[in-house]
Order: sequence, then C-alpha cells, then structure tokens
Amino acid sequence: MVDSKQRQSRIDYASNPSLNFTGMSDGEDEVIMSKQNRRGFLKRSAALAGLVVGVVGSGNVQGQEAPPPENAKDFLAYGQRSRFETAVRVRGRTPLQDSTGIITPSSLHFVNTHLRHLPPDLDPRQHRLLVHGLVERPLILTMDDLKRLPSTSRVHFIECADNGFESLRDRNAQTVQQTHGRTSCSEWTGVSLSLLLKEVGLRTNARWLVAEGAEPGKHTISIPVEKAMDDVLVAYGQNGEAIRPDQGYPVRLIVPGWEGVRNVKWLRRIEIVDQPYMTYRETTRYVDLMPDGQARWFMFEMGPNSVITFPSGGKQLSARGFYEITGLAWSGGGAVRRVEVSIDGGRLWRDARLQRPVLRKAHTRFNLDWQWDGRDSLLMSRCTDETGNTQLTLANLSKKLGLSPDYFHLSGPKKAPFIHLNFIQPWKVSSDGSVHNALL
Amino acid sequence: MVDSKQRQSRIDYASNPSLNFTGMSDGEDEVIMSKQNRRGFLKRSAALAGLVVGVVGSGNVQGQEAPPPENAKDFLAYGQRSRFETAVRVRGRTPLQDSTGIITPSSLHFVNTHLRHLPPDLDPRQHRLLVHGLVERPLILTMDDLKRLPSTSRVHFIECADNGFESLRDRNAQTVQQTHGRTSCSEWTGVSLSLLLKEVGLRTNARWLVAEGAEPGKHTISIPVEKAMDDVLVAYGQNGEAIRPDQGYPVRLIVPGWEGVRNVKWLRRIEIVDQPYMTYRETTRYVDLMPDGQARWFMFEMGPNSVITFPSGGKQLSARGFYEITGLAWSGGGAVRRVEVSIDGGRLWRDARLQRPVLRKAHTRFNLDWQWDGRDSLLMSRCTDETGNTQLTLANLSKKLGLSPDYFHLSGPKKAPFIHLNFIQPWKVSSDGSVHNALL
Repeated sequence: MVDSKQRQSRIDYASNPSLNFTGMSDGEDEVIMSKQNRRGFLKRSAALAGLVVGVVGSGNVQGQEAPPPENAKDFLAYGQRSRFETAVRVRGRTPLQDSTGIITPSSLHFVNTHLRHLPPDLDPRQHRLLVHGLVERPLILTMDDLKRLPSTSRVHFIECADNGFESLRDRNAQTVQQTHGRTSCSEWTGVSLSLLLKEVGLRTNARWLVAEGAEPGKHTISIPVEKAMDDVLVAYGQNGEAIRPDQGYPVRLIVPGWEGVRNVKWLRRIEIVDQPYMTYRETTRYVDLMPDGQARWFMFEMGPNSVITFPSGGKQLSARGFYEITGLAWSGGGAVRRVEVSIDGGRLWRDARLQRPVLRKAHTRFNLDWQWDGRDSLLMSRCTDETGNTQLTLANLSKKLGLSPDYFHLSGPKKAPFIHLNFIQPWKVSSDGSVHNALL
Repeated sequence: MVDSKQRQSRIDYASNPSLNFTGMSDGEDEVIMSKQNRRGFLKRSAALAGLVVGVVGSGNVQGQEAPPPENAKDFLAYGQRSRFETAVRVRGRTPLQDSTGIITPSSLHFVNTHLRHLPPDLDPRQHRLLVHGLVERPLILTMDDLKRLPSTSRVHFIECADNGFESLRDRNAQTVQQTHGRTSCSEWTGVSLSLLLKEVGLRTNARWLVAEGAEPGKHTISIPVEKAMDDVLVAYGQNGEAIRPDQGYPVRLIVPGWEGVRNVKWLRRIEIVDQPYMTYRETTRYVDLMPDGQARWFMFEMGPNSVITFPSGGKQLSARGFYEITGLAWSGGGAVRRVEVSIDGGRLWRDARLQRPVLRKAHTRFNLDWQWDGRDSLLMSRCTDETGNTQLTLANLSKKLGLSPDYFHLSGPKKAPFIHLNFIQPWKVSSDGSVHNALL
C-alpha cells in the first residue's frame, strides 16, 4: 500500500500527464504543495471542476433527451454497459486486459471458436437430462427436477487446454486477450454430480462416464467416476442468473480445475460406463503430440498458471512513475498459494498481494506496486499452488518435458497439437512506454 | 445433502409430475426400479431422448438460420442471455426469486426508483474526481489516475435503507422481488478511500466528508472520516468489468454494510469537512420518524437480515415432496454466522447450510432440504451475524423500538418514513401449493 509518509512508495504524480495538464506541476515536488501555492491550486481546481460540471451537464442532456422513453424503460429492466466500454470477445477470447477482480462478466466468458454460429436455442421446458448406463435406477430429469434438488454454488475458472499456446505460434498474438483469453471465472450454481450418481446407484463395474452435449456436433467426452464423485457440478446458474446460451444453457458440466473441453455444455446425457470412450476430442485433439509421433492422452488437470493483465501487450504507458502491476493466477491443483512478479526478466522476484479470499480452482487477482523508471523492463509473473507446483519458464518447462523449446515455437513444427503449456508469459515494456509480447 | 442410503432424506420423485409424465411411476417406489422393469424404462427413456433430439434439432435450425450472420458475430462479441430467461427489474428491484449463488448480475442490480430516466451518460475521459476541503494537498483525479493506483476487489451487498418495508405497506408486494428486491451483491474493484485521504493529508479538524454525484440532482451525503478510513472503496469495477451506468459509471463510492443512499454514484467530489452537512436525504428522507414527530438521524449500518427466495410469494409448488428452501442473508455488521429456517411459523428452527466462503458484508446463500407434506406451512428465516445480533420478528422488533407493530402496518400511518426494519419475512405455503406474503 502507498504510505504517504514514505517518499519512496509515494505515487509519482510528477509524471502524470493528466495532472500536469491541470497546471499542478510547477515545482519539483508537486504532491506536497506549499501553503502559498494552495490558493493558486484551488483556483485552478475550481476551474477544472467547472469544466467537469460542463461535461456532466452535456452528458446528461444526451442521456435524457436522445433516447425515447421506451429505451429508458428497457434500460432499467435489464441493464447494459456504458457506450464508452467497448471491450468484446475476439475469436471467442475474454478481454483480460480490461478485467477487474476475479469474476468474468458472463457476456465476456470465453467461448470455443468451434462454435461458429449462434449456440443452440434450447427451450428449458423441453430439455431433459438422461443419466443411465451401469446404474441401478436410470433417471430422466427436467430442469424443474434439477432445480428442486440440493444446490451448490462455487467460483471456478474454466480454461481451454492449450490456452497460452498462441503466444508461441501466432505472430499476431500481441495482447493478453490473444495469448491467454481462453480462461474465465464465474460463480457456478447447480447440483453435485455425486448426488445424481448416488441417486441412480452405480454398479460395481462403473468406472467412467461419458457426457454428451445437445448441440449439432454432440460433443462427447469421458470423465473418471472418481472425479465425478469429487467436485463436479451439473450447473444451471452462472454469476447469479441462468447460464448463458454460449456457456451451455440450460445446463452444463463444471469439472473444476480440469481442461475446458471436459466441461460439457448443453448437457443432455450422462452414460455410466466401464472404460473411457476414446472420443474424437480426447484421442485426436486435446492431446500432446510428442516428436516421436506418440500422443499423451487424458492429461486432465490444468497446471499452475498466471499472467499479468496490466501492463500487457498492446498497452502504452503514458510516462514513467507509479503503476500497479495486476494480473490473474489460477491452478487446477487447488488454491493459489503465492504469486511472484519480476520486472527484470526473472532475476529478482517480489511477492504480489493476493485478493482475499483465495478460492480453490478459481482465478486469483494479484497486485504489485511498481515505480517505472522509464527504462526497458521485462515483466513476468509465476504462480505456486497449494500442492507446491510452480509455473516454469518456457525453457525450463521444455527441459522438464524433454523437448527443445523450438518444438513449440514458430520455428518448430507449426500448430503442433501440444497442450497444458503453462509457461511464464513475459511482457516487454520499452523505454517509449509500449508493451509487447516478449515471446514473439 | 441427500444420502441415497437414507430413505428419510431421499428425493421424493413420487410426487414429481414431470417424472410421472414420462411413465416412470408405475409402482409404489418408482426410484428403485426392479430389474424386470428396466428394459421397459430404457425403452421409454430412449423414446424421450428422441424427443429431446427433435427439440434440439429444431432449436438449432432456429439458431443457425433465423438470425443474419451479423447477429451471430454480435452475439459472440458480447453475449446475451437466452430468450427464455425473462426476469427483469421492476420498479428498479432485483428479481431475487430467480437468483442463484451470491453474485447479482450487473444487469439486474437494483436501482433507486428516483432515477426515472436513463442514468447520466458520462464520458470517462472527461470525468474528474475532486478531493478537497480540510486537506493539505487537494487532488483532481482522472479515471486513468485512479486506475494507476493500488486497487482492491471485494464482494459487498448494497441495500436500500428501507428494503423490506413494502412487505408491510404495499398490498401488491406479494413477491420477494417486491418486498426485498432492493438488495444486491457484486464484486467491486477500486481504490481504498483511505489511500486517497492519506495522499491529500487530512487536517486535524477533519471529521466528516461530503460526497457528491454528477447526476442532475447532484445527490450529496455525509460520511464520517472513521468509516472512510476503514473500508470504503472508490470503485470503478463491478463483476469484472466497468461499473454499469445505472450503478454510477465511471466511479462511485462503496460504503460496505451501510445504507445504500451513502454509496454515492457518478462520484465527482469529496469534500473533507468538520461536521456533517445535514443534506436533504439524511435529514428529511432516510430517517426514522417516531410517533412523537421526532426523527432518528444517521443510522448508517444495515442490521442482520435474510429472506427466503424459494419458495417465496407468487411461486407455485407443483406437488408435495422434496424441495430445497433457499435464500439470502446479509448483515452490515460483518459476516453472517448462522441462518435458521422454520417451516412452522417459528416454533422449530433448523440450521441452514451456508455457501462457503462466507464473506463479510456480502450476501450469503443459505439452503435447507425440505420434504413438503402438502399441508399449510409458514416459512421463515432468521440471520445471526458475527456480532451476535439476530434478526427479530416484526412483533419483537417493534417491541424493541417501543412501538406498536401497527405503527408500520397499513393500519397505521401510511408511508411512515421508517427505515432499517430488518424483520423476519414469513411466506405462507398453502395446501394447494400457492405461496403468499404472510404479512399482508
């Protein structure tokens, strides 16, 4: 925190152009103004305050006169954001550079780009969930049935298995939205899958389940019964209202901490089986293709990960001085225990503040005060989770995998289907204040 | 939780009409099907599954063919809810009857009905926040300045001071939206007001601050410096994105646990003063008018409160059997420690489950399993907070205040400006399954 008694940690308003603009910067130490100067400052403040009044006035005229009254009614029925806020999903990715806190607005939750059209337009009164297979008492549930059952709400992230990989293979991936925008975090509400499985009664040879969506492609994926009995949710609520259509309305699976592809949307069927179904997306896609042609299958859990969202690629620092470095950390292994930030490419690391409470398998916001001295800086963050696992640099992660970093890079085989690459993302701040993806 | 081994807590599918409709109910205990029956069941299941496929198919045709491609692109840029979800704010109130978890969707956060038109259309590039008065170094901050400062995110409820009062004075207040819809809960992000006050440097006679909004009416209210230095936020973020226009875009005060009127929206000015300003809304409105004509002023903190959101007024139970009673509890005094639920008008109380983690000065979701026997039931909830304060019945609260319950009721003086009435809300479930506000 900034302590007004310590000059070292004081906010450097000297390099703040907007404050300069008001005419405050007429001395070496503008923050502590002499009493003689105060009258002059207040005069200038009053002038600026007058300016603000003028702006507010005109803004209000727009607000009250431009739209017809019907719009005002609609606006108050189900609110919309300001016309000055324009962040959108691009190629389905969440604009993390504009994020605050840990909740992702449902309107900006990432969507898989496989979804080229509108999501299915499912009528919740007609939708059914079938639970069958190696069970004693198969069930068909309506949405009303589901909502009568004991419910649970938890905040969890969902992350696409190869989130971050664009940072290596796409020369256009300059922003954190492009590199890491396929992770989002919501408060999910639904029924514990374990409750449904207890109701249907698993037979002794029940080992896996196959979950199936209701969209045209009928996405299907296998999940071990152990995970299903642990913390999987059959969810119908997201951030206080019904799950959005692009997130699986009216019901989806939430498989906490595991790769996004297992969180089946538009859930219509769960079949209990004795072995995995080896579906398309768990054998051909969402695998790690090793150089010898062999593929690693069924790597479910997302490793400890983090990314600085400000300053990040594409941002422009207006001047030297105080900034807050902020970002998100998460881990499929549980709670984030520690996030460290380096401003010098990994030589020195400082502990960031973590937003409390830290929730398991959820985004965790981290913050660190930073006085930018105007020189080139290489910003990095690394996450350590409750199991003690720590995020590695690309070089060290490659080493651990027994591969050359080139294997993942543009210089290597293009679009090698490698996933779960939770390497440290570096952002380069140049002396002109521009910020770039240092991996490109 | 439902334990499949205990018949007592088993879900009573027998009285579930939608499951009956599928043809499952052909025995005394439909849930446990005999092996002989399973083949027949699966056949019926398959038939129903086919029906679902049909629905999905037609829904998808609508989704892909009806809207032009531009709509699909817009839909994916900034998502919208399903057309089957129609809950809206009515008279500015949050539709709590449809809520899940603890986060209120920003689009449904309650708004004060004083706002008869669209909120001010403020341009964040032009907006300024002035902090001045009894300080050493007055400041004018742009939004960019604010966002450079150390930030904090916290989940807090905001509640209008007289929320719940409609339950007594408005014969039309049958639903929980009408009776208690002026409380909502968001993850707020911003700068600690204490940080700004340390930067400007309070003079020794600084005791209060006056906060002023930028809307046409320029809402103004007084807050003691002690609270400002404790946990007040100057907030620009709500649920992961910019605060919505109807919530004070681009910046507002969050005054955790205190009556909503102090959480000044469209914040443009904070003046540090030596005494409260006795503004219109803290002397004429938002006071407790006692029968002798005297008014109680400056009762800031919202007491422990709770309300059952399901089943609540206007809902219709389809049949006897298992339901989950769910609702929200909160307290300006800190964390909710305990929520008890009665189904017999307050004779017996059972502890409800609380959604974890329980956050201070935030909504807390509670749940309780309930087997409805089909008879008249009177549902109530009561909250106890971390300070040990417990929500009272209207009769006991009146007694504590030294007033007759009639004073608040329709039979008493109409629209008596009495606030902070955190009495227990009873819902009557009649044998026909209808649910009504038992206070009317």
